[in-house]
Amino acid sequence: MKKGMIECSVCHSKLLASPSSKTVSRAYDRHKSRVSSKQKALNVLLVVGDCMLVGLQPILVYMSKVDGKFEFSPISVNFLTEVTKVVFAIVMLILQARSQKVGEKPLLSMSTFVQAARNNVLLAVPALLYAINNYLKFIMQLYFNPATVKMLSNLKVLVIAVLLKLVMKRRFSIIQWEALALLLIGISVNQLRSLPEGTTALGLPVATGAYMYTFIFVTVPSLASVFNEYALKSQYDTSIYLQNLFLYGYGAIFNFLAILGITLVKGPSSMDILHGHSRATMLLICNNAAQGILSSFFFKYADTILKKYSSTVATIFTGIASAAMFGHKLTMNFVLGISIVFISMHQFFSPLAKVKDEPHNGVMELKEEDPQRYSLFSPSH
Amino acid sequence: MKKGMIECSVCHSKLLASPSSKTVSRAYDRHKSRVSSKQKALNVLLVVGDCMLVGLQPILVYMSKVDGKFEFSPISVNFLTEVTKVVFAIVMLILQARSQKVGEKPLLSMSTFVQAARNNVLLAVPALLYAINNYLKFIMQLYFNPATVKMLSNLKVLVIAVLLKLVMKRRFSIIQWEALALLLIGISVNQLRSLPEGTTALGLPVATGAYMYTFIFVTVPSLASVFNEYALKSQYDTSIYLQNLFLYGYGAIFNFLAILGITLVKGPSSMDILHGHSRATMLLICNNAAQGILSSFFFKYADTILKKYSSTVATIFTGIASAAMFGHKLTMNFVLGISIVFISMHQFFSPLAKVKDEPHNGVMELKEEDPQRYSLFSPSH
Repeated sequence: MKKGMIECSVCHSKLLASPSSKTVSRAYDRHKSRVSSKQKALNVLLVVGDCMLVGLQPILVYMSKVDGKFEFSPISVNFLTEVTKVVFAIVMLILQARSQKVGEKPLLSMSTFVQAARNNVLLAVPALLYAINNYLKFIMQLYFNPATVKMLSNLKVLVIAVLLKLVMKRRFSIIQWEALALLLIGISVNQLRSLPEGTTALGLPVATGAYMYTFIFVTVPSLASVFNEYALKSQYDTSIYLQNLFLYGYGAIFNFLAILGITLVKGPSSMDILHGHSRATMLLICNNAAQGILSSFFFKYADTILKKYSSTVATIFTGIASAAMFGHKLTMNFVLGISIVFISMHQFFSPLAKVKDEPHNGVMELKEEDPQRYSLFSPSH
Repeated sequence: MKKGMIECSVCHSKLLASPSSKTVSRAYDRHKSRVSSKQKALNVLLVVGDCMLVGLQPILVYMSKVDGKFEFSPISVNFLTEVTKVVFAIVMLILQARSQKVGEKPLLSMSTFVQAARNNVLLAVPALLYAINNYLKFIMQLYFNPATVKMLSNLKVLVIAVLLKLVMKRRFSIIQWEALALLLIGISVNQLRSLPEGTTALGLPVATGAYMYTFIFVTVPSLASVFNEYALKSQYDTSIYLQNLFLYGYGAIFNFLAILGITLVKGPSSMDILHGHSRATMLLICNNAAQGILSSFFFKYADTILKKYSSTVATIFTGIASAAMFGHKLTMNFVLGISIVFISMHQFFSPLAKVKDEPHNGVMELKEEDPQRYSLFSPSH
């Protein structure tokens, strides 16, 4: 295989890993030397912010429903979310440019923009994958019930880890792999009660096509996240707001093309993207947009795995909060599930899980992991 | 506190730890130097034997029932089991004595016996605790339903670990503590479906007395196992069959005293210890006896934790075998539960879990664990 190419472990297709992964590490390593322990606090802030946004989500979804269902087209939500993110990125860019000191490379000049656009063209890949994923979600719900979809989504954790190993050359110790498996198991235990009676026996979906849909459903968003992390980190010196502008710009274009396509098939009523929207749905769109923007901070300054743990912790806190507010009793599943998740989290981020680089036990992954890997580096504005 | 005394972490009573725990380690350390890697295979044999006996148990219990219930007194089963174990120990002692070479200290001489009896008087403690535990089991079933009892029993794993730390001065790494918590959680996830509907909300038993019963129910058998391990290992040079003879002799005496006591209260019909027994119940008693004898090998040559893992693996194989034989579908709970148990097992016995003795992370338990700790040393006959 040529240098700079990587092979996907699942589909065996050759992927272009250019700029080579060495460049990623170099750009990232250069940054790491500037990271201080104080920024661990920012890492916590990132998770706390994520938890709040994820916690708001079900309330906004509930408020957005009219007579128990959505009146708007799901595609319009995706498009409006992308547009909101683009607007946010532009506003932040302007604010950042205003506070620039004399002598700094101007952020808003045409040459900076063109140069950055050329360097960050790779962001089109995650943007396309995200757009595809948004449609897949709706397709999946035709084949499986929502609880099964949720259960299958948990597999993403492991797929993401495998992709990080392949694309980002991340190394996980055996304890860390087990921690990720435990995360998957912990979330599943928590969800067990919500599965309909028939599916608790291990006979999930057995239709021939279902396996393929499941595979795609799990792989596409995982690829999107990991490529997003890769693309954002590989151009570490580009402002994150500029990177977001490209990412969400591509996203808006792909979603707009989809709306156009659907209009051609279904007729002009699909073009009415504001149909069925209310103040609540606008809040929902803002929340979605904020979650997306926070994700890009996770991907650039922390990583996809921390984002996954963050989402899980958010779900747990939502569960506890709703139990406290509505007087629900916590189920045994919930208590066992979150115990597993917290043990998993401790094991994954524990320095004990990171093993010295010595020939030991025949395990390949036992490389020293950088303890600063998960610290947040605040953008240099 | 005086030297040679230890304090129970739960009831704060002072316990006499004589012969001092240093003696235990010395006797055990002396033996360890003779242990070869070949004996790991014997360790596996121990677990396999245990799995077979535990697997037979439900079949024999089913066969022992007449019209769905037992006709015999449960106390008589305990007494007959102890007698069977005494008989086995005597037979083994005679066989061992016959194969002794000239010049070896004679096993069956009166002086050897008296000397060993004096040294091993500590075995009366686990024998008494086991006898108490056998009655507690029946009392507990009056207060809780069997599924709840099973669920509460899982807590024994953690209590045993705490007792091993206190009595045997065992050190566990933080990963090993987490592994034990995962074992507890894994078994619980597996049992979740067997809980009656009402108890899945975390409102198990809330009666005032229930907490005390639960505490005793969990602590007594754990204390019994750990003291048994302590007593067997502290007199490492005494033949295990001689130690068993004392242990089960004390056990038979305690059970006989209980039968006498019940006879005084309930009248002479309680003395008829063979009432209601059949060929099947005799097989059940032999199986119980064999499990008891195998346990003593676990305690002397391996440890209580390996015995716990072994019982869990046995339960898993019984589940898989019954699913295969009777065409049951494996439930999601079962699959998630055993995944957790296997990860727990790997983490507990993995050399990765044993951390070097360096000031690291502020954790106290990070002492190098002896990798040969769990290997079986075959009795020297």
